[in-house]
Amino acid sequence: MRILGIDPGMAIVGYSLVDYVNDKYLLETSGSIQTDKSETDSERLLEIFNDLSSICETLNPDCAAIEKLYFFKNQKTIIPVAEARGVIMTVLQKYNIPSYEYTPIEVKQVLTGYGRATKKEVEQMVKITLEKDDLPKLDDTIDSIAIAICHSRNLR
Amino acid sequence: MRILGIDPGMAIVGYSLVDYVNDKYLLETSGSIQTDKSETDSERLLEIFNDLSSICETLNPDCAAIEKLYFFKNQKTIIPVAEARGVIMTVLQKYNIPSYEYTPIEVKQVLTGYGRATKKEVEQMVKITLEKDDLPKLDDTIDSIAIAICHSRNLR
Repeated sequence: MRILGIDPGMAIVGYSLVDYVNDKYLLETSGSIQTDKSETDSERLLEIFNDLSSICETLNPDCAAIEKLYFFKNQKTIIPVAEARGVIMTVLQKYNIPSYEYTPIEVKQVLTGYGRATKKEVEQMVKITLEKDDLPKLDDTIDSIAIAICHSRNLR
Repeated sequence: MRILGIDPGMAIVGYSLVDYVNDKYLLETSGSIQTDKSETDSERLLEIFNDLSSICETLNPDCAAIEKLYFFKNQKTIIPVAEARGVIMTVLQKYNIPSYEYTPIEVKQVLTGYGRATKKEVEQMVKITLEKDDLPKLDDTIDSIAIAICHSRNLR
């Protein structure tokens, strides 16, 4: 089961492809779509649409796991993040990729057993799960890996 | 100047094409994209994407005017409305249609001279502006006409 993990955002969309084979988690690829602050929101959203479309065509995942938005979290950025999320869900549906949603608390709970785990603790569990010492630099990309692992664990 | 007015939403997207010729406002067409509650959000968003794409191809507007979201308004529905709005802005950008944003208060201010005007008062001004007694039934469609008129007035 090849899972595309996605951490939505207007400025950065973190993504990763996590496969679970023979009782092991394999990080096939990971990266980010980054859009420029100097562009209009419409331009940035179309960029996310086009770039994620290419990613879906290239990686051809079995399903996707995406962060679900909480109303009371990040009040200031909730509107642009939700706008980007809408675009991301449209692309996934366009490519017939079933998508599953998890709140940050659910991801933390599944990975560390504790819904209020710190960023460091989640990162540590991602390292252990992937049996990797080096993770991508961007938090958004690491978050996308955590979401993909969360979905894989949830399936089993 | 043919303006596509859009009132965004997950369940209903109101739209209208308003033209301003010879000192008169002409409502060329109006309607709504309606999505089914029984579908997933991803399915509904793709439907909005596809339907609005057809509308843009058919109507070929010069520009679009769309409602801007306020954080403190409609707290419960802000996330799905923002998701739909992200999809709408992506479509407009895809068809190179410049889009302009107005808050409900700005629309009311421009149409009636009073930012806290009632729905009835805005409706009345839309009727007077279009010189029409009968308006579309859906509030969302009427709102999209008001947004288009607001943008036209703002341009002059």
